[in-house]
Amino acid sequence: MASLDLSRDVVTLTADLVDIASESQQEQEIADAVEAALTPLAHLEVVRDQHSIVARTSLGRDERVVIAGHLDTVPANANLPSRLDGDVLWGLGSCDMKGGVAVALRTAATVPEPTRDVTYVFYEAEEIAAEFNGLGRLARERPDLLAADFAILMEPSNAQVEAGCQGTMRVDVVTRGERAHSARSWNGVNAIHAASDVLARLTSYEPRQVTIDGMLYREGMNAVGISGGVAGNVIPDEARVSVNYRFAPDRSESEALAHVRDLFDGYELVVTDSAPGALPGLDRPAAAAFIEAIGVDVAPKFGWTDVAQFSQLGVPAVNYGPGDPLYAHKADEHVPVAHLTAVEEALTRWLTR
Amino acid sequence: MASLDLSRDVVTLTADLVDIASESQQEQEIADAVEAALTPLAHLEVVRDQHSIVARTSLGRDERVVIAGHLDTVPANANLPSRLDGDVLWGLGSCDMKGGVAVALRTAATVPEPTRDVTYVFYEAEEIAAEFNGLGRLARERPDLLAADFAILMEPSNAQVEAGCQGTMRVDVVTRGERAHSARSWNGVNAIHAASDVLARLTSYEPRQVTIDGMLYREGMNAVGISGGVAGNVIPDEARVSVNYRFAPDRSESEALAHVRDLFDGYELVVTDSAPGALPGLDRPAAAAFIEAIGVDVAPKFGWTDVAQFSQLGVPAVNYGPGDPLYAHKADEHVPVAHLTAVEEALTRWLTR
Repeated sequence: MASLDLSRDVVTLTADLVDIASESQQEQEIADAVEAALTPLAHLEVVRDQHSIVARTSLGRDERVVIAGHLDTVPANANLPSRLDGDVLWGLGSCDMKGGVAVALRTAATVPEPTRDVTYVFYEAEEIAAEFNGLGRLARERPDLLAADFAILMEPSNAQVEAGCQGTMRVDVVTRGERAHSARSWNGVNAIHAASDVLARLTSYEPRQVTIDGMLYREGMNAVGISGGVAGNVIPDEARVSVNYRFAPDRSESEALAHVRDLFDGYELVVTDSAPGALPGLDRPAAAAFIEAIGVDVAPKFGWTDVAQFSQLGVPAVNYGPGDPLYAHKADEHVPVAHLTAVEEALTRWLTR
Repeated sequence: MASLDLSRDVVTLTADLVDIASESQQEQEIADAVEAALTPLAHLEVVRDQHSIVARTSLGRDERVVIAGHLDTVPANANLPSRLDGDVLWGLGSCDMKGGVAVALRTAATVPEPTRDVTYVFYEAEEIAAEFNGLGRLARERPDLLAADFAILMEPSNAQVEAGCQGTMRVDVVTRGERAHSARSWNGVNAIHAASDVLARLTSYEPRQVTIDGMLYREGMNAVGISGGVAGNVIPDEARVSVNYRFAPDRSESEALAHVRDLFDGYELVVTDSAPGALPGLDRPAAAAFIEAIGVDVAPKFGWTDVAQFSQLGVPAVNYGPGDPLYAHKADEHVPVAHLTAVEEALTRWLTR
């Protein structure tokens, strides 16, 4: 069985985590190793839920914070095992997000008496369909374990704080026509031609920009798929444009859908996917104190992350972790050593001052 | 082995042909039966080429005509065996085009001394990719067997004469963009949005109408397929609109392509399919004499048929056969008895007067 030595430096620990393969739904070995490393620590109460681990201090502090990271990765892409080259650590999951997990494990081990009570959460199955997500399961079945004043999700964010996240919705806009042989096209109605107006509305659409807690969120309304056609000699009777709306977190899912319905007024719509955004919550005392203590830049988060799950639980949350998210899911995934040490140093400082 | 009795009436003969299953590339049995029925006729010289049969009179007439039909059908669709119900014969291939084949076989048997020399052609594999087409193979390898002053293709045409045929061309119009995460769409260029202009050009396109030999040909320019999209969270970098141009037979394939290039000026085009049209050729003496003798209406042919192959050989050709082409390839395929008897009567009259 793989084992983790939390007394090693954060770079070595990240490399050791990378070298425990943990593609989604194959997290048993890494969860066993994390559980085995945390259980001996007397200041932590460790709870395991399937392949997710929760470890909590109970010092009676005024405030409780969650520090969370997922243990799984996307499938390998010829990027295992890990390789340290100068000031960069390469390998699957080094960026997304075993670097963040390593920082959290280090903090769990080295800060036995944090100035805020801490709930560490290491969870499974973030990279696949939401129904498997370990954090989601905890939120549904053990919300008591996630209760907190503030949450830090250690997703890669260039060692900067990214606050909130935008919501995302996918909708099929359907056009209909009438089939006919294409040699006698005047007997039919071309559903692909009818999609011309749908694309025209998208092309002339001006995405909203909105400032929340001082940060500028930029929305987006984009066709991410289009399909139609029966055969090379048939006027098609149906076409579908799959539209992805990324909406700022001041809009609820139902407001977002109303906006999409308004834009495509007159068309048949099928909602295929929807997830709410999360407000940055930087006006909440716990969040403001964190930002001030960490002393780094704060930017809006555009991509959807699990901070939205905390938001649904009423817990303000930010993304803060080592690694550039542009390298997540890429063959050349890597994390700068400087990010690992900077984030560890800042978190430790915040939990000890 | 199935056998055909050419002394039976044309309706019975059509039913017997329907009951010899002959899906494309399974024509051996029907070709054997046709060859066996024609070989005893002393006035015909019979040549077999794979599963295509050519039978010719050689009476030294001033004029030679081809009368042709394909032996294959599309796959069965719960429409076998044949069924005669009142004045309609039902079954796979009854319309497309065993009714026409039955008429030609009857004429071959009952008119031993036609006033024009006749080349009967019964060929395989018309319903599948052009490379297998038996008429095409004869045109390439035995053009001498197809030499004639005029050709009648007995494709279903409601017992009317349909002259010439339109050409057909399929072109993919490709738009390109740049991928990006859809949460940061401003970093990419959306290729599906770029297709908006392609569809707009199609929607505002006014198809040409042209009169040739007194008949009005209506062209068509239609999207028959559209595709694009990488994943639900990715700005797509490519989209393809498959456009089918049906062009009047006064335009060559290269003229048709120039017209398409002009319409989609500025876009990348990929030609995926192209077949020339066929001029009606009603100004040619043999054709004019046929029209006059048959005494039925003449209409332009919009769909592409093998008359274009004769046109390429310099032989004017028309479609003239029993059955409504709208029922070709349908489960409820059928042919009216009145069409079978009318076409047999007219052809016989033309060949004996």
